[in-house]
Amino acid sequence: MDYCLLVILMKYEVKDEKKDLLSEPIKHIDIKTFNAIPLIEAFDHMAFQSRNLANACKIYDRMLVDKDCSIILCLAGSLVSAGLKNIIVDMIRHAMVDVIVSTGAIIVDQDFFEGLGFQHYRGEVRVDDSKLQKMHVDRIYDTYIDEDDLRVCDMTIKKIADGLPSRPYSSREFIVEMGRYLQKNGKNPDSFVLEAYKNEVPIFCPAFSDSSAGFGLVFHQHERKNNYLTIDSVKDFRELTELKVQSKQTGLFMIGGGVPKNFVQDTVVAADILGIDATMHKYAIQLTVADERDGALSGSTLKEANSWGKVDTGYEQMVFSEATITFPLLVSFAYHKGTWKKRKQQKLNQLFQ
Amino acid sequence: MDYCLLVILMKYEVKDEKKDLLSEPIKHIDIKTFNAIPLIEAFDHMAFQSRNLANACKIYDRMLVDKDCSIILCLAGSLVSAGLKNIIVDMIRHAMVDVIVSTGAIIVDQDFFEGLGFQHYRGEVRVDDSKLQKMHVDRIYDTYIDEDDLRVCDMTIKKIADGLPSRPYSSREFIVEMGRYLQKNGKNPDSFVLEAYKNEVPIFCPAFSDSSAGFGLVFHQHERKNNYLTIDSVKDFRELTELKVQSKQTGLFMIGGGVPKNFVQDTVVAADILGIDATMHKYAIQLTVADERDGALSGSTLKEANSWGKVDTGYEQMVFSEATITFPLLVSFAYHKGTWKKRKQQKLNQLFQ
Amino acid sequence: MDYCLLVILMKYEVKDEKKDLLSEPIKHIDIKTFNAIPLIEAFDHMAFQSRNLANACKIYDRMLVDKDCSIILCLAGSLVSAGLKNIIVDMIRHAMVDVIVSTGAIIVDQDFFEGLGFQHYRGEVRVDDSKLQKMHVDRIYDTYIDEDDLRVCDMTIKKIADGLPSRPYSSREFIVEMGRYLQKNGKNPDSFVLEAYKNEVPIFCPAFSDSSAGFGLVFHQHERKNNYLTIDSVKDFRELTELKVQSKQTGLFMIGGGVPKNFVQDTVVAADILGIDATMHKYAIQLTVADERDGALSGSTLKEANSWGKVDTGYEQMVFSEATITFPLLVSFAYHKGTWKKRKQQKLNQLFQ
Amino acid sequence: MDYCLLVILMKYEVKDEKKDLLSEPIKHIDIKTFNAIPLIEAFDHMAFQSRNLANACKIYDRMLVDKDCSIILCLAGSLVSAGLKNIIVDMIRHAMVDVIVSTGAIIVDQDFFEGLGFQHYRGEVRVDDSKLQKMHVDRIYDTYIDEDDLRVCDMTIKKIADGLPSRPYSSREFIVEMGRYLQKNGKNPDSFVLEAYKNEVPIFCPAFSDSSAGFGLVFHQHERKNNYLTIDSVKDFRELTELKVQSKQTGLFMIGGGVPKNFVQDTVVAADILGIDATMHKYAIQLTVADERDGALSGSTLKEANSWGKVDTGYEQMVFSEATITFPLLVSFAYHKGTWKKRKQQKLNQLFQ
Repeated sequence: MDYCLLVILMKYEVKDEKKDLLSEPIKHIDIKTFNAIPLIEAFDHMAFQSRNLANACKIYDRMLVDKDCSIILCLAGSLVSAGLKNIIVDMIRHAMVDVIVSTGAIIVDQDFFEGLGFQHYRGEVRVDDSKLQKMHVDRIYDTYIDEDDLRVCDMTIKKIADGLPSRPYSSREFIVEMGRYLQKNGKNPDSFVLEAYKNEVPIFCPAFSDSSAGFGLVFHQHERKNNYLTIDSVKDFRELTELKVQSKQTGLFMIGGGVPKNFVQDTVVAADILGIDATMHKYAIQLTVADERDGALSGSTLKEANSWGKVDTGYEQMVFSEATITFPLLVSFAYHKGTWKKRKQQKLNQLFQ
Repeated sequence: MDYCLLVILMKYEVKDEKKDLLSEPIKHIDIKTFNAIPLIEAFDHMAFQSRNLANACKIYDRMLVDKDCSIILCLAGSLVSAGLKNIIVDMIRHAMVDVIVSTGAIIVDQDFFEGLGFQHYRGEVRVDDSKLQKMHVDRIYDTYIDEDDLRVCDMTIKKIADGLPSRPYSSREFIVEMGRYLQKNGKNPDSFVLEAYKNEVPIFCPAFSDSSAGFGLVFHQHERKNNYLTIDSVKDFRELTELKVQSKQTGLFMIGGGVPKNFVQDTVVAADILGIDATMHKYAIQLTVADERDGALSGSTLKEANSWGKVDTGYEQMVFSEATITFPLLVSFAYHKGTWKKRKQQKLNQLFQ
Repeated sequence: MDYCLLVILMKYEVKDEKKDLLSEPIKHIDIKTFNAIPLIEAFDHMAFQSRNLANACKIYDRMLVDKDCSIILCLAGSLVSAGLKNIIVDMIRHAMVDVIVSTGAIIVDQDFFEGLGFQHYRGEVRVDDSKLQKMHVDRIYDTYIDEDDLRVCDMTIKKIADGLPSRPYSSREFIVEMGRYLQKNGKNPDSFVLEAYKNEVPIFCPAFSDSSAGFGLVFHQHERKNNYLTIDSVKDFRELTELKVQSKQTGLFMIGGGVPKNFVQDTVVAADILGIDATMHKYAIQLTVADERDGALSGSTLKEANSWGKVDTGYEQMVFSEATITFPLLVSFAYHKGTWKKRKQQKLNQLFQ
Repeated sequence: MDYCLLVILMKYEVKDEKKDLLSEPIKHIDIKTFNAIPLIEAFDHMAFQSRNLANACKIYDRMLVDKDCSIILCLAGSLVSAGLKNIIVDMIRHAMVDVIVSTGAIIVDQDFFEGLGFQHYRGEVRVDDSKLQKMHVDRIYDTYIDEDDLRVCDMTIKKIADGLPSRPYSSREFIVEMGRYLQKNGKNPDSFVLEAYKNEVPIFCPAFSDSSAGFGLVFHQHERKNNYLTIDSVKDFRELTELKVQSKQTGLFMIGGGVPKNFVQDTVVAADILGIDATMHKYAIQLTVADERDGALSGSTLKEANSWGKVDTGYEQMVFSEATITFPLLVSFAYHKGTWKKRKQQKLNQLFQ
């Protein structure tokens, strides 16, 4: 009989192990440092998703040329933890985006979180998750977050809420306050919540409580019992519809699908219901890995959105490839084209003052 | 030279063409009429997604056996327009679900819409969407909806809102009112908004305004100027957390991903932040086509959720296959097992009275 | 400092551990034991992939009705190791298929392998693969194979080759010899290589050496130095084109994509090049998870194949869902419809005698 | 009643319409004209597929550094029609690849085809395929091919076969003859069949007849009746195994999956069966959109391949993103790193002379 005797002797210090796990911070890509124009121009003569990406680049540049167009950036997926944050910061700084509609996690757990001085870390996919859980390390695919840091973020939201008058807020209004907080207390200038605040770019989270903000706000309401602030999701929709109505033309730049994609498309219908004749979104690009075959919204084609009267045809393109690769290329192309130099900040937050 | 002269003479009546397009209603599958047990038991000895589906069936049955367990059904994707509505109605009728968390479209545009007597129709994928748009026909992959019917649905939401006191509502509270409306004015008994109302099953929509409800509520607020009702998404989160805390154990039955998946998982953390020691979700199954490779939430594994302390390990299973096929099989299995016969309606809406 | 001292003492017998790993054989589903007709008829009034599956069922039944039609089954993916083998055996026994085109692995490593008395086993996805490797356990996603058994299979192929005259063979001819071998020496009557042999159903493997057969045949040639048999892939193509030409109509039933899908579609063009006026494939269904967006063959649409003059339009349907779930439903539907009762075995191997 | 009278008058010349469709040739990307190093180095600090791509780049560079390593490029998917041809030409010219294993379509219908002076064209996805068919225009997703050109390609294969001695050939041997033909008669210097011929880089097509070559060779055999050449797929496998045995180390660079992926991995086992102690493939990278969940080979993980004793662990990486975007970035990175400058052409075709 083949017996096998195995003795493993392990000694480790738990704290040090956590420190080891959280030792390599995610660094955000800087699209200004490489010029994607030659690559994209080559892609334009090729096929499949490379050509689709080139076409999306051309449509985005066309949005930037069109002086009547307000550009709405829709964000879904773990984009900031993946290292894409500074692209969005740069888009705001260079007047390449006018409105942002996002999932809550991107805004609160990821961007605002980093604005407070915290970081995301390189991790592994194949790992013992229950061990991570014991160390308070949260995993997003191949990245790690220190859960103790996240709790500080939650509590900061509560603190902001505690200092505000008790009334219904749109998520946009509350995110303005988060930007204000970062301007005073932030520890990292590269936050698009902060940058949007400074440039008066409205940010909407149609499902705001579905994030770290939810934790802080639930605690705020729980503690106050009554006389607390509320987040009125109807107000979000009213404000975004107002923005749609005020813009002569609109262009959608969507990363991922989900609620942001649906919400912003619906504004055309909402305007119509209010008796206002708003145009369809004239331009629309989407970077996604979802496809149309399961009938779900995220992968639904922009042609399908045309049947709903939401998106015009002619300047619409889906790119079926993952955003960590395509988003940097797309914005680097547009940045180096320089069309934004003739554009002005639309400062659309001023509409609501 | 080969010249080709083509003359097409078309005469048609627009109204008749629309009627033709909307002539074959979607019929909802009845999982009571076929017994999936032999199929699922065979799947259990096979491989890949068939075996994963069999394991998910076993876990769902285990949730039904566990007397301490509250079962939370999370819905995302165009499930009702696809013919899956009556499965959910049957789950409520037979005490197979205790809480529902859903996207707004499923609740308002699809289920409530059908409760008002409207229908969805078989359509085509390859079609001229701009032509559909002119006829007020909206497309979801291979199904059609009459946009004029949808407007009636929007306005019904407004009417309900107009009749309610002006205060912040959770989406759950408003959906109770929708159920009450259907009981009085509904034209189709097969609506799970109605059935949940009757059986006091709470329904949450964390992004309620991102739906046909949004249109009606925006109109309501717009007309009233002030003194209108609001939808407080924080209240949603507080109430769902309260439900989590009151349940000894919880099991998640997720179709698709998106906001419902994230929202319900977050309740464990929310409870913790309020200083209450809530258990992780003990059981979790998800039917999805998304995968983990793009780092987004919808395809994130249930193992990953364990690192966040949200989902326990041991009884969790993802089935990577489309829900129009897997959902009927799964619930037919559980229905014919009959475990639900020993279960009682938990009537969790009573918690909030 | 929190030191943690961990001592693990493990004693195990390697052979027993391997036996444990290989303790739960995959069992093949029997589509005769459940009737999928009610389910599929419900699917026909629904949407997305359930309706596509229902339409594929109707097209397959139409192939069975059409007396002029030869039905060609194309197989790719680990179908036999997943428990789908007996469906194919039943299709042959009940005259529901006339020609098979397959990857080598399905024919040799999986079906012939089981015909020799070996089995596949339930396994795990998340496992230490290097440990498996040391134990001679091969993994396919969540199934295990005993590598030592596979070597016996390889050597059996060599033995068959050693006993045959030295000349070029089509894969079809060699697979006939494998069937003959199983009839004499097989240990499991449920093998479709055997069943096809008995019913004179031709089986083609366009990439025959890319399988366990390759190992045996390389050894055969290596040992002989010269005077060995060869596998002429051109002969395969000639023979399959001959079959296409002899059939008035053809219907394709494809599972997965890859070489079998391409090979069989190409026969229409091959006939044309030989100056013979062959019809396009009149019917075509495909069960696959691949999609068209990367331009690769496996996910290319059957409409696209029409541009090549390979597949006719009207009776073609792709079902985008995994075959372990959809294949049993599809064939159970057709089996219980009973259309095959009026069909005769076409015994197409006789064409080459 | 709303009557709508529509009269369309169309006049077009069929030949001109075809010319219009085939007016924009695909242009092949030149990875020497842009430097992907800064982008890839940024990706290395990010997450998801961007980081996986960066890791694959590092592994490929490691293969180029390792003097003992033979680099085997595996090709599947419509890569050449998509504009990726010159990347492969450049890899050969700069000693960045030592062996190629490919599907037949890439070698014959696409590369050799362009070597004869023909081209691929930009096309559309949403198009009337039956109309294309009538015009002899073949579609691959969003590209077009003139079917009349393809027939010339088929007949050229026949002509080459007609001029060769009648004996069994490996696909490698036949492809050498195709390179020889192009050197004399080719009309485009950018062909990797030609470039491989000049640099004595072996090219294998394990399913050679499953391509335009099949058409020509069937015609050759059909016309000759007997005394024709054959393609012995066993010989392919023997030769590739011989190459594996002769190389101290091997690295796999796989684009797509399918037969090439499987075939080259199997050589380790084949060597073992011949009693030769070959090492596992030391390095392995794969660019693919397939995933592991359906158990099929194309998406099977390289960890899984380790259980089979085929691929070593440590230096293996899958990149789940489409190759038209990732392949140019990967090879541009390696090209500009310049490691290839210290490498020599291995000229492995000499092994078989």
